[in-house]
Amino acid sequence: MTTSVRPAHLPLGEIRGGRLYGQHILSVKQFSREDVEAIFVIAEEMRTMVERVGTFDLLKGKLLANLFYEPSTRTSSSFTAAMERLGGSVIPISEVRYSSVSKGESLPDTVRTLECYSDVIVLRHPEVGAAATAARYVRKPIINAGDGIGEHPTQALLDLFTIREELGAMDGLTVTMLGDLKNGRTVHSLSRLLAHYKARINFVSPESLRMPTEIMNELSARGMTLSEHRQLDVVLPNTDVLYVTRVQKERFASEEEYNALKDAYVITPDTLKAAKQRMIIMHPLPRVGEISMDVDDDPRAAYFRQMEYGLYVRMALLAMVLGKA
Amino acid sequence: MTTSVRPAHLPLGEIRGGRLYGQHILSVKQFSREDVEAIFVIAEEMRTMVERVGTFDLLKGKLLANLFYEPSTRTSSSFTAAMERLGGSVIPISEVRYSSVSKGESLPDTVRTLECYSDVIVLRHPEVGAAATAARYVRKPIINAGDGIGEHPTQALLDLFTIREELGAMDGLTVTMLGDLKNGRTVHSLSRLLAHYKARINFVSPESLRMPTEIMNELSARGMTLSEHRQLDVVLPNTDVLYVTRVQKERFASEEEYNALKDAYVITPDTLKAAKQRMIIMHPLPRVGEISMDVDDDPRAAYFRQMEYGLYVRMALLAMVLGKA
Amino acid sequence: MTTSVRPAHLPLGEIRGGRLYGQHILSVKQFSREDVEAIFVIAEEMRTMVERVGTFDLLKGKLLANLFYEPSTRTSSSFTAAMERLGGSVIPISEVRYSSVSKGESLPDTVRTLECYSDVIVLRHPEVGAAATAARYVRKPIINAGDGIGEHPTQALLDLFTIREELGAMDGLTVTMLGDLKNGRTVHSLSRLLAHYKARINFVSPESLRMPTEIMNELSARGMTLSEHRQLDVVLPNTDVLYVTRVQKERFASEEEYNALKDAYVITPDTLKAAKQRMIIMHPLPRVGEISMDVDDDPRAAYFRQMEYGLYVRMALLAMVLGKA
Repeated sequence: MTTSVRPAHLPLGEIRGGRLYGQHILSVKQFSREDVEAIFVIAEEMRTMVERVGTFDLLKGKLLANLFYEPSTRTSSSFTAAMERLGGSVIPISEVRYSSVSKGESLPDTVRTLECYSDVIVLRHPEVGAAATAARYVRKPIINAGDGIGEHPTQALLDLFTIREELGAMDGLTVTMLGDLKNGRTVHSLSRLLAHYKARINFVSPESLRMPTEIMNELSARGMTLSEHRQLDVVLPNTDVLYVTRVQKERFASEEEYNALKDAYVITPDTLKAAKQRMIIMHPLPRVGEISMDVDDDPRAAYFRQMEYGLYVRMALLAMVLGKA
Repeated sequence: MTTSVRPAHLPLGEIRGGRLYGQHILSVKQFSREDVEAIFVIAEEMRTMVERVGTFDLLKGKLLANLFYEPSTRTSSSFTAAMERLGGSVIPISEVRYSSVSKGESLPDTVRTLECYSDVIVLRHPEVGAAATAARYVRKPIINAGDGIGEHPTQALLDLFTIREELGAMDGLTVTMLGDLKNGRTVHSLSRLLAHYKARINFVSPESLRMPTEIMNELSARGMTLSEHRQLDVVLPNTDVLYVTRVQKERFASEEEYNALKDAYVITPDTLKAAKQRMIIMHPLPRVGEISMDVDDDPRAAYFRQMEYGLYVRMALLAMVLGKA
Repeated sequence: MTTSVRPAHLPLGEIRGGRLYGQHILSVKQFSREDVEAIFVIAEEMRTMVERVGTFDLLKGKLLANLFYEPSTRTSSSFTAAMERLGGSVIPISEVRYSSVSKGESLPDTVRTLECYSDVIVLRHPEVGAAATAARYVRKPIINAGDGIGEHPTQALLDLFTIREELGAMDGLTVTMLGDLKNGRTVHSLSRLLAHYKARINFVSPESLRMPTEIMNELSARGMTLSEHRQLDVVLPNTDVLYVTRVQKERFASEEEYNALKDAYVITPDTLKAAKQRMIIMHPLPRVGEISMDVDDDPRAAYFRQMEYGLYVRMALLAMVLGKA
């Protein structure tokens, strides 16, 4: 499963011309299928470069302000690594809860200050819409690294890039999403990106944690084939991509529902006996028991490789918004 | 207002010779007018370089220890950006409240340790005199980035540099300082630097938050023209630089005084109708309501540009103390 | 005492061949005397390079993930400086207590994620065995930067390197370790490294804080000459290296014992009257009163130089595990 089928490159002219140059990355909704393909072509170039030479000086002299209003080791580290592998530098700002911000400074004032020092701002914020708000006040590109239960577009792009690198194509695949589909922004965003392709999606969740109706309607209107289930077993055999998310106990309707369902949402080697040989298991991480560690050595377990693909996608986005791709 | 009149350079020989090389930056009191001019010549070279090429390798291979005993996103980020734009690297140390220091290590021991790893130390500390104490124990340059209600010399220099870049000259200007003039170290330090020039200062504050008498006396003794006011309106029409600071409710003598005066200390577009067309509004930031966001688009609003000038001044100071200017 | 006698280099071929390349650094027990010598030869090359040129690009393009589950300004800063002086970059991860880890992510998952972004992982963790656990899950080198009361191998190596650089040879020296020898991992690890040499060790501690019997037995079995004492005065005159550690009040058996002994474990200029002229005083720092600040200017006080030697040892280890030494 670790081999990847690399599709022929799009004509480079289209990309070099500067798609995304100077733009904010706020939502998956802003991307056309062509945008997504352009990002992935660059991401794959990044993969090749990292595998060959580790780092290179494409963004030498550029500064990234990595502004995290809530901690996220994974996302923060990934952007830091992406910038540094491109030869750029990072201003880490992760103490905001103790700092001028907690003295009451507004988000617009903070980003306008950071824009004076840096070339691009990565923003993680607990409130929905924060990245869009910030973007209205600055001329330097803002990359949304998660705004509450809102968007996390780079996560959705890396999820889709993982599918492409692992399975070679996205059209015609069956994707099964499992767990808390109501509150999980990653499954919302990935679903929207998959709507660019002829993917079929199975949503498997407890009744109380179903994919929101408005998103279901949006996806249906875009011609996707969707189905909903309470149990994984009926859909697993035809699944190409099993996307597992965390189910937090406190989000169930009742203790009874939680106890009745929790084991159905834990992936073990036993679960996978019913799965295809050529399929992948994904998870946005961190996981807390939804996938047994016994699964990790199965070649279908793609969740750590997924982290690595994230590096390439973020390198691509940084290079593109800074006009260097 | 964004245009800047750049005065003819001082003879470069004077500066290249190494003014400030190896020196600590502890207080505005250590600077002669010639020192200030020399710093500004270099700061302007930094501005030109950043605008043209973004970063350059003047301090490649140099390490800055960025030691913050209390958080200050703005100052910390600004020094980080300054060092990185000069090609140097930064050791961020902002967790000191949890670390060896909170295990009781003395400031001298901490800076002597950091001196083993780095080439220059930027120090922010809540206690007055901390930077001077630290400087007695190390041979590498210490830059005071704020010691309690004491000094914050790089802030005062960037304030003055802002005036110079925005208005072209400092002699003969009328500067009005507004707000809490008793506790604001920025207005104390800037006043002292302005004493090198034939500036006139109007102090506008509540009775209980007046500029301290000893500073007034010091400034008068140096030949400055000073006046004190409770209201802004009488002095605004002749003001070239309006320097606004925060007035914290809890520092007023009484609730009555606060309610009576607070609106007089908030700058709105209405306030500015009485101001000159060619003047600037400054603020050390963060602001919390002292200047309405409606003012931000007025070309006279210089407070975000002020942040950018801070980058150039800090780049200049780092280069100078490391002997590379 | 600051002069160092640099022994003739080992044949470079032996080292260049790649000793330690790709290996984890988990415990002092993994090192033969030849390993230690090889590390020190490289560390001394690092010292020469830093003194001559400050930094160089040996690890340009390499990324270090600096993963600290508990704060340690000194160790964290030292590794950061080591990597940056070698031209590499650092991903600082010191907020783990607030982050995905505190959401319950396992150490294996965290290091497997970081391995996707970085080339080497430095790990500080409060639990004994954490580094060894992490090492089982990743292919990139893990460097143990302290795991609870377990190991801190780079500290022991820098301690030994300090002795070598300050006194020129390690065979035949008399080393006196003072303080809490029961809980101090630094004295445990250093003792084990000294067993490679014909050093004699005096252990001076309160009865309740003696060097653990199993370590004493291990050292005896390796042929070392050991002796135990309650007071320093009898052994000080013959001591070449006095290694002082902290004695925490709460670790004494009783208030009486603490009051009776505490002054015997504080080094003052008076104490040193009985010491040789050519000897050194070491301390892993931070100190809290075990060595009077009045001793700092004595040329025998090596504890700040010890910090600097730590930089060279960590540079050597990073270069070696990354195959660039």
